[in-house]
Amino acid sequence: MRPSGRDLDELRMVSIETGVTKHAEGSCMIRMGDTHVLCTATLEDRVPPFIKGSGLGWVTAEYGMLPRSTSSRMRREASAGKQGGRTVEIQRLIGRSLRAGVDRVALGERQITIDCDVIQADGGTRCASVTGGWVALRLAVNQLLKSGEVVTDPLIDPVAAVSCGIYAGQPVLDLDYPEDSSAGVDGNFIMTGSGQLIEVQMSAEGSTFSKTQMDQLMELAEKGVSELVSAQKAATSA
Amino acid sequence: MRPSGRDLDELRMVSIETGVTKHAEGSCMIRMGDTHVLCTATLEDRVPPFIKGSGLGWVTAEYGMLPRSTSSRMRREASAGKQGGRTVEIQRLIGRSLRAGVDRVALGERQITIDCDVIQADGGTRCASVTGGWVALRLAVNQLLKSGEVVTDPLIDPVAAVSCGIYAGQPVLDLDYPEDSSAGVDGNFIMTGSGQLIEVQMSAEGSTFSKTQMDQLMELAEKGVSELVSAQKAATSA
Amino acid sequence: MRPSGRDLDELRMVSIETGVTKHAEGSCMIRMGDTHVLCTATLEDRVPPFIKGSGLGWVTAEYGMLPRSTSSRMRREASAGKQGGRTVEIQRLIGRSLRAGVDRVALGERQITIDCDVIQADGGTRCASVTGGWVALRLAVNQLLKSGEVVTDPLIDPVAAVSCGIYAGQPVLDLDYPEDSSAGVDGNFIMTGSGQLIEVQMSAEGSTFSKTQMDQLMELAEKGVSELVSAQKAATSA
Amino acid sequence: MRPSGRDLDELRMVSIETGVTKHAEGSCMIRMGDTHVLCTATLEDRVPPFIKGSGLGWVTAEYGMLPRSTSSRMRREASAGKQGGRTVEIQRLIGRSLRAGVDRVALGERQITIDCDVIQADGGTRCASVTGGWVALRLAVNQLLKSGEVVTDPLIDPVAAVSCGIYAGQPVLDLDYPEDSSAGVDGNFIMTGSGQLIEVQMSAEGSTFSKTQMDQLMELAEKGVSELVSAQKAATSA
Amino acid sequence: MRPSGRDLDELRMVSIETGVTKHAEGSCMIRMGDTHVLCTATLEDRVPPFIKGSGLGWVTAEYGMLPRSTSSRMRREASAGKQGGRTVEIQRLIGRSLRAGVDRVALGERQITIDCDVIQADGGTRCASVTGGWVALRLAVNQLLKSGEVVTDPLIDPVAAVSCGIYAGQPVLDLDYPEDSSAGVDGNFIMTGSGQLIEVQMSAEGSTFSKTQMDQLMELAEKGVSELVSAQKAATSA
Amino acid sequence: MRPSGRDLDELRMVSIETGVTKHAEGSCMIRMGDTHVLCTATLEDRVPPFIKGSGLGWVTAEYGMLPRSTSSRMRREASAGKQGGRTVEIQRLIGRSLRAGVDRVALGERQITIDCDVIQADGGTRCASVTGGWVALRLAVNQLLKSGEVVTDPLIDPVAAVSCGIYAGQPVLDLDYPEDSSAGVDGNFIMTGSGQLIEVQMSAEGSTFSKTQMDQLMELAEKGVSELVSAQKAATSA
Repeated sequence: MRPSGRDLDELRMVSIETGVTKHAEGSCMIRMGDTHVLCTATLEDRVPPFIKGSGLGWVTAEYGMLPRSTSSRMRREASAGKQGGRTVEIQRLIGRSLRAGVDRVALGERQITIDCDVIQADGGTRCASVTGGWVALRLAVNQLLKSGEVVTDPLIDPVAAVSCGIYAGQPVLDLDYPEDSSAGVDGNFIMTGSGQLIEVQMSAEGSTFSKTQMDQLMELAEKGVSELVSAQKAATSA
Repeated sequence: MRPSGRDLDELRMVSIETGVTKHAEGSCMIRMGDTHVLCTATLEDRVPPFIKGSGLGWVTAEYGMLPRSTSSRMRREASAGKQGGRTVEIQRLIGRSLRAGVDRVALGERQITIDCDVIQADGGTRCASVTGGWVALRLAVNQLLKSGEVVTDPLIDPVAAVSCGIYAGQPVLDLDYPEDSSAGVDGNFIMTGSGQLIEVQMSAEGSTFSKTQMDQLMELAEKGVSELVSAQKAATSA
Repeated sequence: MRPSGRDLDELRMVSIETGVTKHAEGSCMIRMGDTHVLCTATLEDRVPPFIKGSGLGWVTAEYGMLPRSTSSRMRREASAGKQGGRTVEIQRLIGRSLRAGVDRVALGERQITIDCDVIQADGGTRCASVTGGWVALRLAVNQLLKSGEVVTDPLIDPVAAVSCGIYAGQPVLDLDYPEDSSAGVDGNFIMTGSGQLIEVQMSAEGSTFSKTQMDQLMELAEKGVSELVSAQKAATSA
Repeated sequence: MRPSGRDLDELRMVSIETGVTKHAEGSCMIRMGDTHVLCTATLEDRVPPFIKGSGLGWVTAEYGMLPRSTSSRMRREASAGKQGGRTVEIQRLIGRSLRAGVDRVALGERQITIDCDVIQADGGTRCASVTGGWVALRLAVNQLLKSGEVVTDPLIDPVAAVSCGIYAGQPVLDLDYPEDSSAGVDGNFIMTGSGQLIEVQMSAEGSTFSKTQMDQLMELAEKGVSELVSAQKAATSA
Repeated sequence: MRPSGRDLDELRMVSIETGVTKHAEGSCMIRMGDTHVLCTATLEDRVPPFIKGSGLGWVTAEYGMLPRSTSSRMRREASAGKQGGRTVEIQRLIGRSLRAGVDRVALGERQITIDCDVIQADGGTRCASVTGGWVALRLAVNQLLKSGEVVTDPLIDPVAAVSCGIYAGQPVLDLDYPEDSSAGVDGNFIMTGSGQLIEVQMSAEGSTFSKTQMDQLMELAEKGVSELVSAQKAATSA
Repeated sequence: MRPSGRDLDELRMVSIETGVTKHAEGSCMIRMGDTHVLCTATLEDRVPPFIKGSGLGWVTAEYGMLPRSTSSRMRREASAGKQGGRTVEIQRLIGRSLRAGVDRVALGERQITIDCDVIQADGGTRCASVTGGWVALRLAVNQLLKSGEVVTDPLIDPVAAVSCGIYAGQPVLDLDYPEDSSAGVDGNFIMTGSGQLIEVQMSAEGSTFSKTQMDQLMELAEKGVSELVSAQKAATSA
């Protein structure tokens, strides 16, 4: 029934390749089927003004799509002169989600910026960005632990994200673009490795959904996130 | 236990005053305690290019805060030269939510723009904007029905929104600013008059929450929205 | 002969309601007929860089119109990405005018920002902003005097403004929108409570005027400002 | 008593050199003492959208200062990314003033853009721009009359401008920069060749002025404008 | 003597991998040592307004760097709100160079946009963009030829680019970042497969160079471009 | 054969008039035929942040065209809200070229800004800006030497620029607008008084050129620059 032939509760093929750029303190290319996102972590000793002197660390994120990551070419945001509303929403979400899994006292007064750049898009880029972004963050933090700059691991629990939605009347896991563009209800669940919720965003466009459906979607998400956390662990244990 | 002395499941005092500006096709001042939002509806015969000729209508929203609606003065966005990320997120949410309750075929090829301007802020301005925005929309659509320009009521069901969160370890309804600024988990539920969900946005900042807590928050939201829908009906029946 | 039936030298009904927002150090809603402007004063201890260390205070103003304050909806300046030329002109005028009535030595090194936001427009919004802005300023300064932060009253004399113009060949006082949009000559007089001039701006669009007419307009303005100063005094004495 | 040794009612040395650029339909360099402004007129067959099809013409203006036209270098507005408030105010004033002397029906549906670029500044640049701008306009219109594209002269009456102010307690004509920067009251009078007023802008900064002083300033202005109109006539009669 | 141990006239290891994204009409990842640039070609039926109706085609380019393609993180241009001067210069150069090898009549009224996005930077990104950009262009044009939309091959000759400079007093080919950042003279040669010049850009910073050195650099460039053209042919023949 | 009747290797009539504005530390109006550029030098004690404390000086440039310097009016960049790509390219070139002739240690920690404003354009404005810019720079540095603020002359060698191109199949020197707009190949040579190269920029649009042609163009450039350097010396010796 799904265009891809997947089961209702089946993720796309996930791969996480680490160490893909030589400059970043942490990096990976995450592939969820045909959605490919390059995630890098940049470590800096400075923090934003609003926490200067607080002893707390900061994790933030930026998101972008290459102009031809999509089926028809998108206008380059740098040339349009600003980041669109969707971009701003997504990067705020990524930063907020990753921070939820960080002990900012243990991190100390330093900032880690996660850049998520979509190389190829086929739906679910923001979820792939969170999941891959956490891997880049994990690798950068590993450097800090190895060098002794940080002594207590500031990463409390892995953070991963998956989309769910109601497609052709059925709750489905991890929507690809053909599903996403016709689903009346869809959203994202961001959770920790131990199954706690960080962010729930379900929204209907020209439609509504019931509490029962909400429960079914949440169950799908729990299954998906748990598989993604396994992939994160496999990619970062070495 | 709440700073305001309210019960955990108690809304702030709600008032919806209609007809507050002489120019708009629909308008109201919604007050949720000390949060006051002026909502106006503007009716236009043109639609955005992407639906031109489709026969479908459009509902969109814009949101702003007066510089001194808050405790310390915010920079005016017009002077800063752009709408901030938070503003963009909120106005997209308002537009999307209101459209979920509209039969766009029945509306016909016309656009209604809902402007939500926060005169005084004390938490929950986006929810107040959705709830008050629907009232302005209802009044503008009433004009269309009265004049015969539209024959079938395009408003399927009222749309209202309420915030919930976990404050001092307890799930609470309708957070005011003191609660909002210290709650580790909070979010918004947007629902219809018949109890269907339109949008669920729960997010944790430096914290997480369990599925059980999510269920408790949703129950609070159902109670809150049902009371807000009563207030909307009272304000628009005349 | 005037659309509103007023006499040539008759102001619209004036009302000044103070204390209308809980956050601002001074606030009022001024209503000149159907023109309603919310004026707030924000008190800050910092001053602009160019007077830092001079011991002098500063008064500045910002002006905005809600998108649907007008008969047809205006584009929101925050969304357009900049303040238009008219807005910039008006807010510079308001700031300059109010400063003319302030002893900046007595005020001391602090800044007061007057925000004038037009809730409903029917002509004469800049004049209403000056008149109402002075009331907000007066109330904020009263706080400084009461707390002892400032000992000598820095407000030398009330400042108020009124528009005049030549409508249907006749000099008239306080133009409303129907008059304003058809007057070939109009402008604003800003004066002090003791009848001194601060700013005179008369301009003709597609027309000219004589020195005799200029004199008649100035006489109307003197009458109008004197009545507005009485309203300011009534609103701020308590 | 004046820094330049001029009499109170004495203009600076005025020179208007026409035909200074080969591309423009009309051009002049106006020099009022050390203030030098290059004025060009550009003739186009298109008009702004808001008068398309009306049969009426349009005259508009733009103003700029070269970065080192002033004593210390100003930031280039093109590099700052926008025209400042002062620039916007001035160019609106120039356009409005020149239009007051134009019969837009006789001009027909065409646009003339007057560019006023300050090459060297020593006070009074906006007045010099109006006076020189009218000369460029006159020359461009002469071309239209000569070619027969326009049959009735659309220039009703010359338009010229002069500044006045109260310097060291005395009303003076045509302020140069040293006077301008210390005058508490100053402004501009824009008038026609036949002595009618187009625009009066007097403003006090940190000071006020009386009706009597206003009358004295207007008398000075009448004298100054009458001399400037003679210079305009001399420059354009050939 | 070179930091990399290369001979003076030795290119870095070149690899050109085609077909790297599923959406673009042509794509490749070009790697010149540690400089990696993703090049995509987008085919559109519309052309820019200035050639509409001329029957001529258009080739244009855009260039960007991922924020962490460099050793320390660069600010994202989309977030800075504009493309910097260097970006604008580079993308104009790429477009102009590629157009020199295109028969725009044979291409017909369609546009091909080449996006060059630097994934990892180690010097010479603009040259890699031209060389890789031509490969993407070749692949997109192949589709047009295959489908019969275009009958005469519009690509006259391959176009490739290489940098040269004077490093430690010696003319060297294909500077990497360590060389580039200390070379007083460097630049780019863009040439065709048959050895004709398209663009020569040599520039000295805090230094100068002689005509003899210019000749030596040109010789190096000829050798380098000839090898790059071989790599382009190998990558696109299949 | 050339539209102007000049020989293939003949410059336009060159004139350099110095001391043209009273405020700048150095200034000239350079005229290359009908191309007229006003160049001013501004001396400041501050340097850009990236060299603060280094003891080195800085020379930078800005470039602009008056809106009606061209045959049809160009949009004012200040009103467009940004400098176009061409402007940015040109001003970076001017600054880079002038710096190549400066001993930044001898200059000491101060900045000289060269503003090049095109009053009238007929091709070759960037070259005229470099040549005239150096004259303004020379005059400003002379002041520093005279006052004793700088003891060793920081200007190593004059810097001048000329354009060359292939027009109607023939290499020609110093293209005017009619030549420039139809030449398939053109560019700029920037050289020192002693014949060293600083910058070479040749580019073909819809065409290519051979190494032999490149040599011919370079020879023309050498002749042209040598004549321009004589004109610079004549203008600055006094």
